[in-house]
Amino acid sequence: MEQRFAPVIENEAAKGRVVLVCEHASNAFPAPWGDLGLSEAARQAHIAWDPGALGLARGLMSRLDAVLIHAPASRLIYDCNRAPDMPGAMPARSEVYDVPGNIAVSPEERRARTEAVYLPFHDALHGLLMRRLAAGLRPVMVTIHSFTPVYFGKARAVEFGVIHDADPALAVAIRDAAARMTRMNAQLNAPYSAADDVTHSLRVNATPYGLPNAMLEIRNDLIADAAAQEAMAALLAPVINMGVAEIQKQAKAS
Amino acid sequence: MEQRFAPVIENEAAKGRVVLVCEHASNAFPAPWGDLGLSEAARQAHIAWDPGALGLARGLMSRLDAVLIHAPASRLIYDCNRAPDMPGAMPARSEVYDVPGNIAVSPEERRARTEAVYLPFHDALHGLLMRRLAAGLRPVMVTIHSFTPVYFGKARAVEFGVIHDADPALAVAIRDAAARMTRMNAQLNAPYSAADDVTHSLRVNATPYGLPNAMLEIRNDLIADAAAQEAMAALLAPVINMGVAEIQKQAKAS
Repeated sequence: MEQRFAPVIENEAAKGRVVLVCEHASNAFPAPWGDLGLSEAARQAHIAWDPGALGLARGLMSRLDAVLIHAPASRLIYDCNRAPDMPGAMPARSEVYDVPGNIAVSPEERRARTEAVYLPFHDALHGLLMRRLAAGLRPVMVTIHSFTPVYFGKARAVEFGVIHDADPALAVAIRDAAARMTRMNAQLNAPYSAADDVTHSLRVNATPYGLPNAMLEIRNDLIADAAAQEAMAALLAPVINMGVAEIQKQAKAS
Repeated sequence: MEQRFAPVIENEAAKGRVVLVCEHASNAFPAPWGDLGLSEAARQAHIAWDPGALGLARGLMSRLDAVLIHAPASRLIYDCNRAPDMPGAMPARSEVYDVPGNIAVSPEERRARTEAVYLPFHDALHGLLMRRLAAGLRPVMVTIHSFTPVYFGKARAVEFGVIHDADPALAVAIRDAAARMTRMNAQLNAPYSAADDVTHSLRVNATPYGLPNAMLEIRNDLIADAAAQEAMAALLAPVINMGVAEIQKQAKAS
């Protein structure tokens, strides 16, 4: 039997509606893939994971009484926020870095990584959402990401990006709440958008079920250590709560 | 551990691109649910399953060298073509029949049926599609259904309905091919359409991945026995092939 890398689920009995998803939580490079020929610096860089995202997600989890699911291995082995046929699922190059172990991925190897990493992640996330939906606790899906402050040599001014797939309601409500409640540079669909194929998890797990959803992107220099991640969680938990309250108000009014 | 009712997969090593899905193949009422208080007549009627659909699907499977996945229990226990929060997932009434065992489904029971029937079906279908997508055999998803010739006392003239979700390309191509190659009354989005929430399987498994997809509905008096199902498979296999060829032509031209 092939090895399967199950995602980690925390606080599964949570009473809150929010389901937090962290596809890029880890920069682990387990066997049989190993380091894909990357240097130590590359394995620590934003191409391998979203630095700070897991710590922030855990801070949000406890404040929102949310359930949290996160990936157990580097996105460079398989990026769980990409479909198996997307180049970005196992990229041969990411920003300014080559990924030697991904330069010639055979169809068999692509299938094996899909089986080992993507399917267990997706099945667990989907099951989590569906069990809650069935039991009447309609989930709100929020994915937690971080982005690099400098990309291809260019500095990014945005600090907090809120990205939506087909239904913009929750993303707009969270961005508006951030504008009212924080001094962060908060922007909709920045530093990228669904057009860049970054909303795969939302598109597969929330959109078809009509579940409220949004993708949150925090600039990683703002969540560089545990203290900063806690502070950011304390700042953003009320922002997310206000966003969810706003769409509940809209749903009642319609 | 809770019981899980895995779907049946046939011809998994198929070389063809088509993945056939039959959510309403079975009128089995296994324990722990049993007959839900239905009469023998009701358990044989179209409310419990799609009569003839599985025989037709198997005939198509061999002619198209397609893989086939079908549900192992009646749609009245859990309708795998409905999300867990839809009333139709475990309907208390279907056409002119009451379903006693579904009149008061508790949240716990709804969750248990979702876990036992919907999740195994969905995980298996999704896995089937993703493994093929990863290996470069881009799937074409076709669901096979039958409908009753008389509904709420009214006769239906349509014989072959082709229903689409967000992407109409394959459905239109198959309907057009049927019009050219057969004398059937073939209609688009009849006897119902995505607006009636009948395209759940397509919406979850094909639409988010951009996979070509269509839902085929055959009037069940035309596939009432094994010979008729074989004859219909012989008629429709070239129609489906022509539809798939047409969208491949369109994809190359664009």
